[in-house]
Amino acid sequence: MTISLSAASLPVFMTALRNLDHCLDKAVANAQARKFDVDVLVSARLAPDMLPFAAQIRIACDAAKLGAARLGGLEAPKFADDETTMAQLKARIAKTLEWLATVPPSAIDGQEDKDITFPVGREATRTMKGQAYLLHWVLPNVFFHVTTAYALLRHNGVDLGKIDYLAGAGAAA
Amino acid sequence: MTISLSAASLPVFMTALRNLDHCLDKAVANAQARKFDVDVLVSARLAPDMLPFAAQIRIACDAAKLGAARLGGLEAPKFADDETTMAQLKARIAKTLEWLATVPPSAIDGQEDKDITFPVGREATRTMKGQAYLLHWVLPNVFFHVTTAYALLRHNGVDLGKIDYLAGAGAAA
Repeated sequence: MTISLSAASLPVFMTALRNLDHCLDKAVANAQARKFDVDVLVSARLAPDMLPFAAQIRIACDAAKLGAARLGGLEAPKFADDETTMAQLKARIAKTLEWLATVPPSAIDGQEDKDITFPVGREATRTMKGQAYLLHWVLPNVFFHVTTAYALLRHNGVDLGKIDYLAGAGAAA
Repeated sequence: MTISLSAASLPVFMTALRNLDHCLDKAVANAQARKFDVDVLVSARLAPDMLPFAAQIRIACDAAKLGAARLGGLEAPKFADDETTMAQLKARIAKTLEWLATVPPSAIDGQEDKDITFPVGREATRTMKGQAYLLHWVLPNVFFHVTTAYALLRHNGVDLGKIDYLAGAGAAA
């Protein structure tokens, strides 16, 4: 018994992004309760030389989208990186989830040994086998940006707990 | 072709913890360069009701250790949660890595369908199948605490980039 490459990627990405969306919902509710404009969070940073909240959401979405596309040999839709509101960031997550739902598991399964070459930074590329690319690059990347978005919201006083990140709206289940 | 449960757990945990240790090394070097006591970071928090840096390291280690132990039906060593210095936190990571290196992949492989019951919070438990437990609980947890530790260091001005988290000391390779 073993794990298929699609099971280790598609549902993991989708759960992470759904839970991220749930954290954004909690940020919206928290801003209403505390009477501040939730969109001020879009440009929040943990350090002046660190990417802002909007970029964390975009990269979380793109890490999942491009990971699935490269593993499956598919063309992923391109989204303009122009979100300036929480509602637009939620739409970015929704569009990404919509596309991920169209990816056939059969396109990804069996690609463990395929060489995948991808950009690293602005000029370099890196090549990894499909399995290593998923386990040692894509998954750490997706969780990195989802967690950083969570940390940014927590740092700004949004009432989140780790169960929101792990189980999202299904936390009570 | 598929992925074994051990390949999706042990080396992923170990890489994440080695990269975390590398981030701690960069914090030590940064503190020396900026002439502050690196141990002040041990109690740093991103929010007053969020766990401090020391707890992020302990939980990152324990998420990996207990994940491997539960999947493999093994007894994991217990460590006192009493670290107060960066050197002690590095030792915690080292002890965890040492133990993970002793886990036989064969103990974990094939446990995809095993029911795993584990504590959630102080009173509740949750039961998941081995595969779901790894992909939807343990891996997100390990990356959550490693990333939060990274975010805490970045927030305090340590010169880290995402490549330190993804590739650690092997980033140049």
